[in-house]
Amino acid sequence: MKMKPHLFADELIMAVRSKRTPCIVGLDPTIERMPADFLRERSLTITSPREEQARALYEYCDEILIAVHDLVPAVKPQSAYFERFGAPGVAALEMTMARAKQLGLLVILDAKRGDIGPTAEAYALGYLGGAPLGVPHIDCMTLSPYLGADSLEPFFTVCERSGKGVFVCVKTSNAGAPALQDLEVDGLSIAEIVADFLRPWAQRLVGDHGYSGIGAVVGATYAHTAARLRSRLPHSLFLVPGIGAQGGEPHTLGQYFNPDGLGALISSSRAINFPHLYGGAQRGGREAIRAEALKFIASVRSAVPSTA
Amino acid sequence: MKMKPHLFADELIMAVRSKRTPCIVGLDPTIERMPADFLRERSLTITSPREEQARALYEYCDEILIAVHDLVPAVKPQSAYFERFGAPGVAALEMTMARAKQLGLLVILDAKRGDIGPTAEAYALGYLGGAPLGVPHIDCMTLSPYLGADSLEPFFTVCERSGKGVFVCVKTSNAGAPALQDLEVDGLSIAEIVADFLRPWAQRLVGDHGYSGIGAVVGATYAHTAARLRSRLPHSLFLVPGIGAQGGEPHTLGQYFNPDGLGALISSSRAINFPHLYGGAQRGGREAIRAEALKFIASVRSAVPSTA
Repeated sequence: MKMKPHLFADELIMAVRSKRTPCIVGLDPTIERMPADFLRERSLTITSPREEQARALYEYCDEILIAVHDLVPAVKPQSAYFERFGAPGVAALEMTMARAKQLGLLVILDAKRGDIGPTAEAYALGYLGGAPLGVPHIDCMTLSPYLGADSLEPFFTVCERSGKGVFVCVKTSNAGAPALQDLEVDGLSIAEIVADFLRPWAQRLVGDHGYSGIGAVVGATYAHTAARLRSRLPHSLFLVPGIGAQGGEPHTLGQYFNPDGLGALISSSRAINFPHLYGGAQRGGREAIRAEALKFIASVRSAVPSTA
Repeated sequence: MKMKPHLFADELIMAVRSKRTPCIVGLDPTIERMPADFLRERSLTITSPREEQARALYEYCDEILIAVHDLVPAVKPQSAYFERFGAPGVAALEMTMARAKQLGLLVILDAKRGDIGPTAEAYALGYLGGAPLGVPHIDCMTLSPYLGADSLEPFFTVCERSGKGVFVCVKTSNAGAPALQDLEVDGLSIAEIVADFLRPWAQRLVGDHGYSGIGAVVGATYAHTAARLRSRLPHSLFLVPGIGAQGGEPHTLGQYFNPDGLGALISSSRAINFPHLYGGAQRGGREAIRAEALKFIASVRSAVPSTA
């Protein structure tokens, strides 16, 4: 008899409950933004060899992970900042994700992949296959849906087997998103049409806690569309970036949750990664990172008390 | 005085003219499809460690590159098949692209990336920055546009500095593409709206040969939309996948070219990569790969004589 795999959605809901917050921390490491003393200790500059810079990405993320691992249910490494340095960067990403898992965190790889047919299947197996051959230590990844429903299905199929999850970009947080995603066809926005690509699979892969690993990215900067998407995808987890630096306001976040106080993950990256630049801290380092994460968690808790 | 960089679009047009074909070869290496004797020589199976499988991807691509390098202007490695094996896979991709450049080929990385703000910039710098820190040996890459025009602009800006190029997915070759890309808003399809995201940049970055490195992916399976896109993006190069295995017919390819016989690249992957499975060959190997590439070039030349 084949065991039913542990579902990402179930593990996530349990982690949100035990950490008492839907807040997650994005990992967007860039050498340019790291504190001067961190770089000085490593004799590192933005012209150092890429192997050294990649190594620093891991070491900086390790600082963040140590600072926040007991506070949040998951982290979201952004693949671009690692891919920036080629193969050594990807090796640093793998080390970072391994470290996150070791510290008890769920890992959502923000990679926004999307392709068709056997190519989509190769991405899905590599990132979500759960096999020793691919990229290990990933629980969930983000996808981009421009190529259509049949470009997403190979990922959903692999999720069904492995228990892992995806967040498909439905409504993103950037200023230019509406020019494509809010266009309306027969009374439905493109975002809603993409939501409908997910719906049958989201319903089919619901876990024991009522949520599905087939989730949606819904940016915090467009709360007015969140309620419509929430009712359209009742079982989907929403990944909500765009709070803080991008202009999303905590007081609108209630729209992203279901009445049970669940269903959304609120993500913050830059302010927590670099509190000396984007937060209130005089200088960087573990304590400032932790203080900024606590501030973020408190702001979401006071804005949406039902999630606490 | 700062030198104007060599433009991808100019190098490509020159290579198309000197090789006398707009045909390019996709590199979609999968262990499952490699000939039995190639795997046997390496004692390789689909459960071998990922380092060994990644190494075989490079070695198999090397066979393809040796077989076709004097026949075509460019190759298009598909990132997914390398990422499938994590960091060692990405290292094999880098080796493959270095080898392609060494053999005088232009390299179009099919990665369909797309993200916003500083994240998009990190991808752009990593793949198209032309600096020693990122992924070397790339002339051009593919992008996915769901996040909107502002998600593409960081790539265009980096192209303007480095001279490299992009192909943005406008109309893809898969069966599910029309359900999103053919939807019409005020008489324009989503594909045409995305084409308009590119147009100002495509006009701005035109090279000495009249073409721009800001190009579009337009699938061979939808020739009826190609003519409309061709007139909308007169200076853009079109990357045209979907001939052969996916059902695109050579006789419709005229729609993708300008009257000067230029402006499109026709890509074929599976039949040439694996002639023993998808072509007419009894067995795989360099000679069969070369024969299949010659067959592909001849079929495009007879369908669109103006390109010869």
